[in-house]
Amino acid sequence: MNDDKIEVPKDSPNGIVETKYFEFNSLTLESGEELSPVTIAYETYGKLNEKKDNAILLCHALSGDAHVAGLSKETEKLGWWEFMIGPGRAFDTNKYFVICSNVLGGCKGSTGPSSIDPAKGKPYGGDFPEITIKDIVNAQVRLIEGLKIKKLFSIAGGSMGGMQVIEWAYSHPEKVVTAIPIATTFHHSAQQIAFNEVGRIAITTDPNWNNGNYYGGKTPESGLALARMIGHITYMSDDSMKEKFGRRTQKIVKGGKKLNTGFEVESYLRYQGEAFVKRFDANTYICVTKAIDFYDAGNTKDLTNHFYNTDIKFLVISYSHDWIYPPYQAKEIVRVLKFAQADVTYCDISKSYGHDAFLIPHEEQGVLISHFLDNNYQKYINKKRAGQEK
Amino acid sequence: MNDDKIEVPKDSPNGIVETKYFEFNSLTLESGEELSPVTIAYETYGKLNEKKDNAILLCHALSGDAHVAGLSKETEKLGWWEFMIGPGRAFDTNKYFVICSNVLGGCKGSTGPSSIDPAKGKPYGGDFPEITIKDIVNAQVRLIEGLKIKKLFSIAGGSMGGMQVIEWAYSHPEKVVTAIPIATTFHHSAQQIAFNEVGRIAITTDPNWNNGNYYGGKTPESGLALARMIGHITYMSDDSMKEKFGRRTQKIVKGGKKLNTGFEVESYLRYQGEAFVKRFDANTYICVTKAIDFYDAGNTKDLTNHFYNTDIKFLVISYSHDWIYPPYQAKEIVRVLKFAQADVTYCDISKSYGHDAFLIPHEEQGVLISHFLDNNYQKYINKKRAGQEK
Repeated sequence: MNDDKIEVPKDSPNGIVETKYFEFNSLTLESGEELSPVTIAYETYGKLNEKKDNAILLCHALSGDAHVAGLSKETEKLGWWEFMIGPGRAFDTNKYFVICSNVLGGCKGSTGPSSIDPAKGKPYGGDFPEITIKDIVNAQVRLIEGLKIKKLFSIAGGSMGGMQVIEWAYSHPEKVVTAIPIATTFHHSAQQIAFNEVGRIAITTDPNWNNGNYYGGKTPESGLALARMIGHITYMSDDSMKEKFGRRTQKIVKGGKKLNTGFEVESYLRYQGEAFVKRFDANTYICVTKAIDFYDAGNTKDLTNHFYNTDIKFLVISYSHDWIYPPYQAKEIVRVLKFAQADVTYCDISKSYGHDAFLIPHEEQGVLISHFLDNNYQKYINKKRAGQEK
Repeated sequence: MNDDKIEVPKDSPNGIVETKYFEFNSLTLESGEELSPVTIAYETYGKLNEKKDNAILLCHALSGDAHVAGLSKETEKLGWWEFMIGPGRAFDTNKYFVICSNVLGGCKGSTGPSSIDPAKGKPYGGDFPEITIKDIVNAQVRLIEGLKIKKLFSIAGGSMGGMQVIEWAYSHPEKVVTAIPIATTFHHSAQQIAFNEVGRIAITTDPNWNNGNYYGGKTPESGLALARMIGHITYMSDDSMKEKFGRRTQKIVKGGKKLNTGFEVESYLRYQGEAFVKRFDANTYICVTKAIDFYDAGNTKDLTNHFYNTDIKFLVISYSHDWIYPPYQAKEIVRVLKFAQADVTYCDISKSYGHDAFLIPHEEQGVLISHFLDNNYQKYINKKRAGQEK
């Protein structure tokens, strides 16, 4: 058992946070299709300094959103990475200006399948175009430009968030000083694709699926819940499930009679599925998991050539018990960057949690990131002052 | 890549095999319910010798059946462990009399949910009683008694088959000389339960489920197919999926136009799901996975006491890349048996295949088993001749 869990506060030093919306006229997707107009939901924390050189973009994973910290004005809930953001925390808002946006294709304020298609006056549904991690990043680039930021001091994210970090570093190196890919990969393995695919099949075989055109009617809730349950098992580890549930059975007292309703892990999974469908859209699940599966940064040789002598400083983090994004995938990233003579620090954090580890409060991740950021920020500022950096 | 795959013949030295049916009047289940009458489908290979001391019972896994070897008279298909059984093979039919039966609750000839409930004149469906691994074994005991065999020279099986092996050794030690549990465990972990549970939810949320009373109407095909696909991912390994599919995409030429229909691993899974529903019953899937999840041989201390100084000789086998029944579970079995001063041999076979390894032709498993059997059979016969063994 891990005993270093950080207490998550019930309120937040980040206060009440309101989601903002950035709109732009159109985005040409990798597929060639034109998406117009485009809205990107985002939140910010801390203050952008005068030189606009203290901005950090955080990228969320499959089921995340722009609400990364603070108490949401809308939902009154804390953000998904609350323990990492705030005054004195890893992403220290006394120093940095932190931005987080909902991905293109999302269902939390950014343009996605549930948005109104202006051509038809109703939600895109099944007609929403195929989007890619590159498209997601291109939309973020427009947001950053809209905020008048020329260069991000850092970009960080886990899982699909880590793929966005890699894509930023790959396609927009001039806009990134440091990059922190966490529990991620250059490309999904067959096993990772397979788990996403069974989730998609769960949704598309739901009788309410209707090719994604279910808005205004019954939604494919049971399919989406099942997809989430499958995903949830992969986000935990054998060890963390053993610690949390073991073989304990769920006892419910009804009218004085004790009923055995199966294993605790079963009701936990059902609860996770039911909670998820209240806050997530099935079309986004399909659209974003496809973007994840099709993402392929490149082969080792091309990636090494591409990143050769890059100025970006990397901190790569993996988790020992993460079996769905196993540490060997992080090591592939590190190997490429090392061969490319990049400045890269790697740490595999030994935690029993599994893939979700980066979302679960613990000390190591915060310490690693705050030291990496503070150390590099000072160097970056010194270089800027010396005129070596624009 | 493994290059030691054994060629599977297109015909079989075991010839054409016919499934037989053993019937008995009733079986009291662990739940207290009475099942009556009971049919157990079984096949045999080789000849039972006069002393009836050369019998080996093979126990199948979740999706298996009595047709373990030879060409089925009914389906013209080879058995699921063909490469392991026959003259000169691991379970050498020149020496041994090999028996395999379909489990109670199954859908391949043994009494199960699709059998006619005599009280109602229609299939049991959702009213089929809850069965356990102990019930499955008790039905096998009746079959063995029916064949006039007092003691099995050996009992072997992988996965759920291994649980039956453990249960035989635990509850009927006087009927077992040697036991070979493969890729199995004393009890399912939370992770193993969770994967079975999402499969069950896929079935029970299928609109054709109807609480298991779907016979004669539409069957919960898409739910069962999905359950199989989820299971199938867990039976393979990250490495074996990488070797077999990698990130290759499926290209289909339609009317001169090449269509990209997604990843090869996706169409493979769909194919596996579709093939499975043609040969398997959803109620059996639910009923048997529950028996698996609820099986618990006991805790370490009780098991050690129970097996103390047992006469049974054990060969425990695990597979290095089996992540759903990981080697640590086999090692728990070995540890208990060693502490119980039992005669136990353990081998972890290094193969990339994953849990399915024991079903995939390779040399090591056969060699280990044939040496173990031949060595112990000679000792057993010598002891019998010396009057030390009944």
